[in-house]
Amino acid sequence: MELETKKISHLQVGDRVDCFLIIKRVDLKTTNSNDKKYLDFIFGDKTGEISAKLWEVPAAMEEMFSPGDLIKVRGTVTSYMNNNQFKVDRIRLAQEDDDVRAEEFVETAPMENTDMLRQILNYLQQIKDIDIHQVVKVALEEKQAEIMYYPAAKSNHHAVRSGLLFHVLTMLKLGENISKIYPQVNTDLLYAGIILHDLEKINEMDASELGIVKEYTVEGNLLGHITMGIKNLEKICDKLGTPNEKKMLLQHMLLSHHYEAEYGSPKKPLFLEAELLHHIDMIDARVYDFTNVTKDLEKGTFSESIFSLDRRRIYKPNL
Amino acid sequence: MELETKKISHLQVGDRVDCFLIIKRVDLKTTNSNDKKYLDFIFGDKTGEISAKLWEVPAAMEEMFSPGDLIKVRGTVTSYMNNNQFKVDRIRLAQEDDDVRAEEFVETAPMENTDMLRQILNYLQQIKDIDIHQVVKVALEEKQAEIMYYPAAKSNHHAVRSGLLFHVLTMLKLGENISKIYPQVNTDLLYAGIILHDLEKINEMDASELGIVKEYTVEGNLLGHITMGIKNLEKICDKLGTPNEKKMLLQHMLLSHHYEAEYGSPKKPLFLEAELLHHIDMIDARVYDFTNVTKDLEKGTFSESIFSLDRRRIYKPNL
Amino acid sequence: MELETKKISHLQVGDRVDCFLIIKRVDLKTTNSNDKKYLDFIFGDKTGEISAKLWEVPAAMEEMFSPGDLIKVRGTVTSYMNNNQFKVDRIRLAQEDDDVRAEEFVETAPMENTDMLRQILNYLQQIKDIDIHQVVKVALEEKQAEIMYYPAAKSNHHAVRSGLLFHVLTMLKLGENISKIYPQVNTDLLYAGIILHDLEKINEMDASELGIVKEYTVEGNLLGHITMGIKNLEKICDKLGTPNEKKMLLQHMLLSHHYEAEYGSPKKPLFLEAELLHHIDMIDARVYDFTNVTKDLEKGTFSESIFSLDRRRIYKPNL
Amino acid sequence: MELETKKISHLQVGDRVDCFLIIKRVDLKTTNSNDKKYLDFIFGDKTGEISAKLWEVPAAMEEMFSPGDLIKVRGTVTSYMNNNQFKVDRIRLAQEDDDVRAEEFVETAPMENTDMLRQILNYLQQIKDIDIHQVVKVALEEKQAEIMYYPAAKSNHHAVRSGLLFHVLTMLKLGENISKIYPQVNTDLLYAGIILHDLEKINEMDASELGIVKEYTVEGNLLGHITMGIKNLEKICDKLGTPNEKKMLLQHMLLSHHYEAEYGSPKKPLFLEAELLHHIDMIDARVYDFTNVTKDLEKGTFSESIFSLDRRRIYKPNL
Amino acid sequence: MELETKKISHLQVGDRVDCFLIIKRVDLKTTNSNDKKYLDFIFGDKTGEISAKLWEVPAAMEEMFSPGDLIKVRGTVTSYMNNNQFKVDRIRLAQEDDDVRAEEFVETAPMENTDMLRQILNYLQQIKDIDIHQVVKVALEEKQAEIMYYPAAKSNHHAVRSGLLFHVLTMLKLGENISKIYPQVNTDLLYAGIILHDLEKINEMDASELGIVKEYTVEGNLLGHITMGIKNLEKICDKLGTPNEKKMLLQHMLLSHHYEAEYGSPKKPLFLEAELLHHIDMIDARVYDFTNVTKDLEKGTFSESIFSLDRRRIYKPNL
Amino acid sequence: MELETKKISHLQVGDRVDCFLIIKRVDLKTTNSNDKKYLDFIFGDKTGEISAKLWEVPAAMEEMFSPGDLIKVRGTVTSYMNNNQFKVDRIRLAQEDDDVRAEEFVETAPMENTDMLRQILNYLQQIKDIDIHQVVKVALEEKQAEIMYYPAAKSNHHAVRSGLLFHVLTMLKLGENISKIYPQVNTDLLYAGIILHDLEKINEMDASELGIVKEYTVEGNLLGHITMGIKNLEKICDKLGTPNEKKMLLQHMLLSHHYEAEYGSPKKPLFLEAELLHHIDMIDARVYDFTNVTKDLEKGTFSESIFSLDRRRIYKPNL
Repeated sequence: MELETKKISHLQVGDRVDCFLIIKRVDLKTTNSNDKKYLDFIFGDKTGEISAKLWEVPAAMEEMFSPGDLIKVRGTVTSYMNNNQFKVDRIRLAQEDDDVRAEEFVETAPMENTDMLRQILNYLQQIKDIDIHQVVKVALEEKQAEIMYYPAAKSNHHAVRSGLLFHVLTMLKLGENISKIYPQVNTDLLYAGIILHDLEKINEMDASELGIVKEYTVEGNLLGHITMGIKNLEKICDKLGTPNEKKMLLQHMLLSHHYEAEYGSPKKPLFLEAELLHHIDMIDARVYDFTNVTKDLEKGTFSESIFSLDRRRIYKPNL
Repeated sequence: MELETKKISHLQVGDRVDCFLIIKRVDLKTTNSNDKKYLDFIFGDKTGEISAKLWEVPAAMEEMFSPGDLIKVRGTVTSYMNNNQFKVDRIRLAQEDDDVRAEEFVETAPMENTDMLRQILNYLQQIKDIDIHQVVKVALEEKQAEIMYYPAAKSNHHAVRSGLLFHVLTMLKLGENISKIYPQVNTDLLYAGIILHDLEKINEMDASELGIVKEYTVEGNLLGHITMGIKNLEKICDKLGTPNEKKMLLQHMLLSHHYEAEYGSPKKPLFLEAELLHHIDMIDARVYDFTNVTKDLEKGTFSESIFSLDRRRIYKPNL
Repeated sequence: MELETKKISHLQVGDRVDCFLIIKRVDLKTTNSNDKKYLDFIFGDKTGEISAKLWEVPAAMEEMFSPGDLIKVRGTVTSYMNNNQFKVDRIRLAQEDDDVRAEEFVETAPMENTDMLRQILNYLQQIKDIDIHQVVKVALEEKQAEIMYYPAAKSNHHAVRSGLLFHVLTMLKLGENISKIYPQVNTDLLYAGIILHDLEKINEMDASELGIVKEYTVEGNLLGHITMGIKNLEKICDKLGTPNEKKMLLQHMLLSHHYEAEYGSPKKPLFLEAELLHHIDMIDARVYDFTNVTKDLEKGTFSESIFSLDRRRIYKPNL
Repeated sequence: MELETKKISHLQVGDRVDCFLIIKRVDLKTTNSNDKKYLDFIFGDKTGEISAKLWEVPAAMEEMFSPGDLIKVRGTVTSYMNNNQFKVDRIRLAQEDDDVRAEEFVETAPMENTDMLRQILNYLQQIKDIDIHQVVKVALEEKQAEIMYYPAAKSNHHAVRSGLLFHVLTMLKLGENISKIYPQVNTDLLYAGIILHDLEKINEMDASELGIVKEYTVEGNLLGHITMGIKNLEKICDKLGTPNEKKMLLQHMLLSHHYEAEYGSPKKPLFLEAELLHHIDMIDARVYDFTNVTKDLEKGTFSESIFSLDRRRIYKPNL
Repeated sequence: MELETKKISHLQVGDRVDCFLIIKRVDLKTTNSNDKKYLDFIFGDKTGEISAKLWEVPAAMEEMFSPGDLIKVRGTVTSYMNNNQFKVDRIRLAQEDDDVRAEEFVETAPMENTDMLRQILNYLQQIKDIDIHQVVKVALEEKQAEIMYYPAAKSNHHAVRSGLLFHVLTMLKLGENISKIYPQVNTDLLYAGIILHDLEKINEMDASELGIVKEYTVEGNLLGHITMGIKNLEKICDKLGTPNEKKMLLQHMLLSHHYEAEYGSPKKPLFLEAELLHHIDMIDARVYDFTNVTKDLEKGTFSESIFSLDRRRIYKPNL
Repeated sequence: MELETKKISHLQVGDRVDCFLIIKRVDLKTTNSNDKKYLDFIFGDKTGEISAKLWEVPAAMEEMFSPGDLIKVRGTVTSYMNNNQFKVDRIRLAQEDDDVRAEEFVETAPMENTDMLRQILNYLQQIKDIDIHQVVKVALEEKQAEIMYYPAAKSNHHAVRSGLLFHVLTMLKLGENISKIYPQVNTDLLYAGIILHDLEKINEMDASELGIVKEYTVEGNLLGHITMGIKNLEKICDKLGTPNEKKMLLQHMLLSHHYEAEYGSPKKPLFLEAELLHHIDMIDARVYDFTNVTKDLEKGTFSESIFSLDRRRIYKPNL
């Protein structure tokens, strides 16, 4: 069988391939029955992930690979526990003259990050209240480097490179379109709430420039991005001299945007824009997940049970 | 003190008034301490409701009044348990030469019902799938009389004359605006789901042409509007020969649109348009309630605890 | 060691056997460490199931077997993760001159299906109300083929060939015996509810004539047997011209028979016969499960933790 | 208007009556506005209860009445808060020469208590296991006086004179009829469980010989009838030398018969007879409540919301 | 009957009294039946509260009284809905020459506030970590005026003058005594957590110098004292340059001290001292409530159902 | 590589060791791919547990080992599924001349059991009420043998040899130190409750003299230690003639000490000492678990997710 270059989502049992991939996880392990060492990988590219094994590890290779490395790999696709698995025959780090860039092998939001940022700044311009405008501007500037590549989550919706920018931008568009129908909505508050609501995920999770989250930070675990966001607003507003009412409204929007106590919001939304922020967040998360889950699904069939959608199996209508 | 003509929401303790009102409830009762009969009313107009008493009832008046009657009433505003109460001095049924129409004394949606229906039919025109189009068209035509005046609920959001039309129309606008951002949305399904989702409330509740719900019907209590809607689609599709897949998708949208089992949906939404239908329904209900609750509230203060909003006290930002 | 013919429930580690079995599941897989293909089976007979492996698969055999096939198999019983496992040495499809019938190798209700049906029709005869009688009669006739072999569930109680018939018949007997104590019970309603309550499981699940459920149907997943049953009654009653009150009562019985919202009933039972239907359903399910779980248990010991019984470990009294 | 003798359930606003009734509660109170004392009663008879007031209380009457007293009363039926109320004109204690018995004015089980006890002892005779037989016999004998008149509850199902006997007897009949269908049921265990399950309600609640519960006892509040029943079995079995296995099985039946932790059972039923005991208890409670709630209801209408039935409004089918 | 001076907890129906009391609430109302105005009060003293009415209000008195006023009042104790009520005959504001102080008429913690503060500062001295010591010192100094008189709650445990000081001091003693048994406890963290945990209740609730809470503040409603406390620590630590780890630990203790999400803690305690803080808070609250509820109870009897103790009725052992 | 003697908690992948260990579990199994038998062990010592395999089992060794055996074992530490695993090269039972005692290889409470018992008896001496004193004394004497070595749980807190003694003693110290702050506490009741609360765990679980729990007893499964404890008090008090009030109070303390229905307490604590018993139990359990979980953790890091702490990952502060 010929060697092929294929994307992960197209691999089938029996394929023999030779391609560039990203290492997302790597562990050195020992086999059960005969004490031999092997490398246990998860590889990824723009289209998905696959578990992989290198069964005979030369001593020199034991410590060669790390998560985030771009590698060239040759091997065969097998099946294990009903999932595809990659049996590695050869593997090496990508070299300069391979002329490939790691960014091309990670899942990324479907728009350029610079373009997304520009559009978000456009919305910022529409915040007329000078105090609120200033607070949002400073908060965005503090994160200007990381926001370009951070995902919006470790493993749920928008868990891709620049996913946070994409999530925020789409929510702003939703906010704009919904506000057209309800003129009573204060778009200053709503746009500010949207831009600020997840910003501290940047300090809650530790992600590489490829948008891959390694782990939650200590502060992320002890406090969480909602509390961290409120703390950060406290410091920014303290410096800017933001009037207390406005600071409080923004902090309440952050505090309440998960809606239910068991999802991390000790207060439910108490004014209209806080209420809308939650629903807009939900809609964008759910549209992302439903779209993602069904994109490779055959019409008239159901997906696997999806943990982040309350274990529902999603259907692709046969229309 | 002069007699005044005031709207209910403007009444204050001590006011002496003379005005036309609608009877929303009336009971003949006997006082505790001295066996005297009195009439216990709830009056309403476009701006709200007030409890009222007629303390000395001439025998001829004992059976004179019914809910929905338009009456002319004179009396004083007192306070009972921290709420306003109306002490009736004189009361009579409105007469032809009073030249007033009951419609002017009930809360009504803020658009003309004929205009709303026209816009809804416009959305119907945009449903390109001929089968789905037909089903929705027939379902709407069946209810063409009642939909002009039915409220969307007995006491929650959109519980006003023509409230159901208004709720459906606003949801269609939301559906349209949200779909612009997500081109993957099938607007045929979404618009159909929106128009159909609450139609059987017309048979679940028994309402007068003033849009006042007297009670739930027996079928409403035993089955509920979700199950009744599915049954009705079953008959319509049976007659039209609608393909099974399309019938099933529409029925699933009805079945799942309350989302949680404890709110009446035995299945959670399993495709994108069903998921969106729920969120659009929520947004329109919540915007209605938040707006309604805060409309007479002073800035910087909280409303009473609102039962339909999980007992939250809603805040009016001081901006 | 001699070759034996044993039933699955009697197999012990170390047994070498040669017997006929049914294939309940089969997958072609590849071993982890050496790329060799093997067949991963679940075999079954009247007494239970066992996992099995064929480690060296001739190419000709790779696609030879399907679920539901009756096969002749020789091999050894080993232990894996504390469960018995079957290591296949030889395997072939049963042939005509083996003179064995697949029906003899699947778990089946303990009465003849024709006999059960006859008894159910006897109960049908006792429904005196002509409208209700007609509805039940038509509903049963529509399913007259499938009801002979359908199980009552995929993996819970009565998940055996003709299990649905057996469940319905036993419930009818319960209904009769309970009604003797409470003369206020309307047995027309109760018997009708019992016969109808699970009929649409036949369209909710896709089962073979051996009573083995392959999967849930699309409609089963999107709507569920309760909603499907109500729809079906709607059509039958529409055709028969059943009075609305009677149709509604039957539909309410279906709607409420799971009792709790989280088990699929949006309404709790609102009249006596609907309430009884639920309890009778529960008793028959629970007696089945308790009896099944303890049938091979030693006195004075506990079963494994049983998922369908809230993870209880059932005890067999030492009397 | 003529004076009438009517049963409480037949009273209508405006009736003037003269009849014997039982005092179920009495409090001396003072009016709000003029410091006058009045007596606030609840009266009862075989058919129900009514609230009553005596507005001008002679000093001599202030302490004359107690709960359980049989009185002769004359007065008028008025309406207060949509309920009937009794305005007392004259009242006195019943005297010997009135020739009326208090028993005739309290709700009572529909069978003679001696007859019910006889039938229960018949079931006791059918318990063949000598140890279990002895335990149940002793437990019954200990309560032989109180069981003749105790109700089964303070305000829920079977809250009438001799209600406990009636509940136990009906459950035994259910147990017998259900066991005919499932021969695997051990009727020794089941009958014993039924007879024993609520016996300690006699010590949990303090009831008069009229079957009226005054209050829960201290031990009832601190431990509850389930724990008290287990304690009592411990002492009885200790004295009789009952084998440990049998004692444990009976105690587990008591412990688990409320099924859910939040209803007082720390363990769910772990063998078949314990499981059945719960369902039989439920059926008899529910049939009692549904029957009671609908007995005076018009066909085709709903009852009030019933607290003990999860606030359901029960329907009386229009058949 | 003689006029008496009695404390509220000793009043009995029929008493005629003349005494000083505090007004806790006052409303001008109009009677139902005859349009007369009356004043509806709640009076209080060190021993409890009583509802009161002044039935004939001279015009001059209509606006004379406010919550917190100390008044001299004469009247009679009547009974209304099973509770004592005070019928006012005469009432006037206390005057200088009455020589009474309002403080003597409000419930107060059982220690001098200066003494409690001194002991708390002693514990502060035992915090050896200089960073943590500084943070706690500054936080306490910011509130040095209000902490002298603030209660710990509006209506639950320690809802008395200086109740917050008393609650904190008792918790510190508990913390000290528990830490003696577990030497692994870091008392710097534990004492800091105890002193800081409820400090922002001072800004969450608006209380007078008598320790009477009028209402929750806007910020209290929108954010709550947990979030407000974290914000305040953020600012204090920012100014002091507190190392991040220490700030985070203190903030996590505040965030998690209500333990359950539904009680306001989005994170459960993740280190030992945070875990202990919660349990120490619970113990002090519960001992306060149990002691308070049973203090006037007779031995061997139960209290009323107590809302803040999950509606339990508390027992006073008969020892 | 040299052979070493190491404690389990110090083992690292690649170590070759030779040491004494305790067998905690042993199963004879057969490999999947080649039918070879192997022994699957769990070994333990004072510092923890490790899974182990003996791949080639001589026939003579197949039945040689049992849980609780002390063995001498030589082998290598490998890695399986991210956990250490022990590959056994040689194994034999410890012999007399090895001069090692099994007690030295099981986790044990950090104090001598005789010393702990002596201190507990000291607390018993402080129970002044003669009736309560007697009850506790008898209950302790009944268990005097088993209490010396029983653990307090199968796998949660204090699941070590003599863990029950240690748990009770530490709770008594807590009870004493807390009571110093609240003089209203009746220490007779509190100490009695503490000593008695878990005593019947000795009959609920079947543990060896090494403090290793093999399984729950039948009675433990059917009734649980709370109900068993109440039964035992019933018998003791019956013999001693303990006054009913005291017996009831002690039984209520046992009944309510798990606090929540879903954790096994059908009643919540209804007097102060019962309430305190629960919190003292919680504190000691939680301090044990937090300490245990973090003892080998690096500062500034989180533990694994801990099942018994609601799956929290515990943090070790970096101070």
